[in-house]
Parts: sequence; structure tokens; C-alpha cells
Amino acid sequence: MASWFGRRGPRRETPRLRARGARRSVTRVEFTDLHPDPDSYLGRAARIQLGHVETLGALVARFERFDDKERLSTAAGFALSKHQAVVAEIERRDGDPAEAMAAVAPSIDHFRSITQGNSPTEALLSFHVTSGFLDDLFIGLAASLPPDLGPRIGGLLGAEAGTAGIVDILEREISVDRRTASFLAMWGRRLVGDTLLLAREVVDGGGHEHGDDVEPVFTELIAAHTRRMDALGLTA
Amino acid sequence: MASWFGRRGPRRETPRLRARGARRSVTRVEFTDLHPDPDSYLGRAARIQLGHVETLGALVARFERFDDKERLSTAAGFALSKHQAVVAEIERRDGDPAEAMAAVAPSIDHFRSITQGNSPTEALLSFHVTSGFLDDLFIGLAASLPPDLGPRIGGLLGAEAGTAGIVDILEREISVDRRTASFLAMWGRRLVGDTLLLAREVVDGGGHEHGDDVEPVFTELIAAHTRRMDALGLTA
Repeated sequence: MASWFGRRGPRRETPRLRARGARRSVTRVEFTDLHPDPDSYLGRAARIQLGHVETLGALVARFERFDDKERLSTAAGFALSKHQAVVAEIERRDGDPAEAMAAVAPSIDHFRSITQGNSPTEALLSFHVTSGFLDDLFIGLAASLPPDLGPRIGGLLGAEAGTAGIVDILEREISVDRRTASFLAMWGRRLVGDTLLLAREVVDGGGHEHGDDVEPVFTELIAAHTRRMDALGLTA
Repeated sequence: MASWFGRRGPRRETPRLRARGARRSVTRVEFTDLHPDPDSYLGRAARIQLGHVETLGALVARFERFDDKERLSTAAGFALSKHQAVVAEIERRDGDPAEAMAAVAPSIDHFRSITQGNSPTEALLSFHVTSGFLDDLFIGLAASLPPDLGPRIGGLLGAEAGTAGIVDILEREISVDRRTASFLAMWGRRLVGDTLLLAREVVDGGGHEHGDDVEPVFTELIAAHTRRMDALGLTA
């Protein structure tokens, strides 16, 4: 499997880690310490947003209600806009978007296949949980991209995603049946495990030294995940 | 099955048919003679555009190439914009978009299910052929809607649909394999039959007298269909 941040520029010969205080025996890595390779980062971000379009696009036909179809297709439209904006960044850097995405496709495709769920509601919870986690990760990582790229990418990935409409659908489905809620809570815990593996793969390719404590990054992402599950009344 | 243009306003008490010249024994009906009921028209137009979003959205994941995914999701975005614009028209007339679409959903859902195709290429040809035909029909019918509605609806339904990108995909797939082309030509003929049945249902509810010759409308729509197939190198 291709390493996500495998292409290194000379800038990454010296890892840019900051000690977080003399008392600490382990170097704590924060989001701004991770310095992803911009080309790999952009390829993955473009592929992930296109994956959002695929997932949401397929769900439009699977939900019966017209207002659900509209919410889902609106969210797909936001993801498409983000995908196109990231593709434009790749082209601005004289990269080939298709090549950049193909290089990272296998791990993302595998992740998508194991997290897709069966029922439409499972699939939508999966989208909400995994896209929330990955989008948080990529927005966080944008802070350590070069200053001519990071703020713009962080801004565009952090733009409107149609999340409120998705939460409305999930809340309605969960309120219908407590067994559904119980199953979805379990499904959510399974999803966060798979998503953490992918996130770990992203971060482990990020140029910091092996053995660094990257837990603060994950602690932050998991806290956001827990808030997302809590908001749905699901036990994270 | 609900009649598409079943709700009549008082305006439609007297059919507005024009004789097309003294020599003709049959009254020829042209697009401007059909006077669809605006509410039913809008409900159907909204449902059909949302159906386009569903079909294209589901196809995004089924085509492997990233540029295909982007073409398909871009086209889905255009259809979503049209759906939302039609929904806004329904609301402007104090209608309930969900009710308006639900009233016409059975016949459209049935049509969608029998024309969906198996392979992604069949499904995409089906979308291209049936959406082209139905969009032509609805743009044509817009000419006989009231003047405070028709031009606006005709304009918005006639806006960019992403067709060029879809034709690019179809041309590539057809060029790969002549057997595919031969099968798709047959599939296209089957599709136009099913689409004509639906179009006939639309037109037969349009307020003109039974026995009127509506063939000119269909002649025009079929000519456009034939041009669409010809452009792909398929025998219509």
C-alpha cells in the first residue's frame, strides 16, 4: 500500500518537532508538528472528498423521502465543490489530479469498503462519523502545510458540508426505534476503530520520528467524535 | 395511477386548440396547444430532476475513472439546481413540493425502474436518452404554461445539464467495443419505446380533446432522440 505522505521534499530531512516542556520524557506531537507532504495531502484530500460525493450520491436513491434526497444531494454538492477546489490546488502546483488520487486510492477504497454499512441508516451514520473524523484530521493537518497553501486548504475543507441536514435524518431514524439506536451505537464504535487505523496511517507518514507521542492529535479527534455521537444520543 | 395533469383550473374548460389550416381534417396539436396544468407539471418536473440526481449520484460510484466521477457528479449538481429551482416555483405558488412530487411519483418510479439498465454504460445511456427526451418534452410544454411561469421554467430546465461530459463517457465506452455499440443501439430503441409511453401519458393529460393528432409533438421529440443516438454513432 502506498504511503500517504511518502513523497518527501528536502524540507523534511530534519523533522520539525518541538519539545513540549523539559519535564516531558516523550516529545508530544501536535497538529502543527506533523508537516504532511503537500502533494500526498492534496491527493488524499481530493480522493476523500470525491469519496464523500460517491457515498452521498448513492444514498440519494436509497432514502425514500424527497426532503432526505435533497439534503443528501445538497451535501454531495458541497463535497463536490471541495473536491474541485482541491483538484484546482493540485493543478496550481502543476500536479496531475488523477495521478495524485490514484496513488492514494487503494487504502481509501479499502477503508470505504469496510465502513460502508448495510442499511441506508448505517451507511449514513458511517458517512457522518468517518467523514467528520477525517475532515477534522485534514483540517487540522492543514495548519502544518506551507503558509501559501495551508490556510486556503483548511478554509475550503472547513466550509459548509451539509452536516445539519444529515444529522436531522439520523436523529429521526434513531428516534423511531431504540433497537436501531443500540445497534448504531455499536456500529459507531466499530467505525471509529477503522477510522483511527486510517488516521494513524496518515499521521505515521507525516515526517515525525517513530515513537513520538502523537496521542494528543487522536485525543482531540476522538473527543470530536464523541461529541458527534452524543449529539445523536448514541453512546460513543 | 394519478393523472399527470389531472388538476384543472377554470382556464382549461375550453380546450385551446388551433386548426392548422383548412385543408387538414385532423386538428394538429403543437407544443403550444397542450396547456399542462401548472401544478402537476411542476410536481413532475421536480420529481424528474430529482430522479436525475438519484441516477447520476448512484453512477458516480459505479464508474472507476476519477474524471468520469467528476463529470457525473457535476451533471448531478446541475440537476439538483434545477430540482431546487422547480421546488422554489412550487412554493412560490403556495404548493407543497413533497405532496406535488408524491402525487406523480408512482408513474415516474415505475418508469425509472424499467429503464435503469444493468451495466454502468447501459445505465448512463439510459439516463442520456430518457432524460434528453423528457427534458425536451418539458421544455416544450413550458411554452404553453401561463406567461408568468412558462418562460422562467423553460429557461431553467433548458440550462446547462452537463451533457457534454456524459457524451464523452459514452463515446469512449462505445469506441472500445463494437459489440457494446450494437447492444446499446438495441437498448436505445427499447428505451425510446418506454419513454414514449410516459410522454404519451403526460400529453394525454394535457387538456386537449381525445383524438387530436399530437403526433407532431412526438415527431419532434423522436427527431431529437435520433440526433442524440446518431451523435454517439448508434442506430436509433
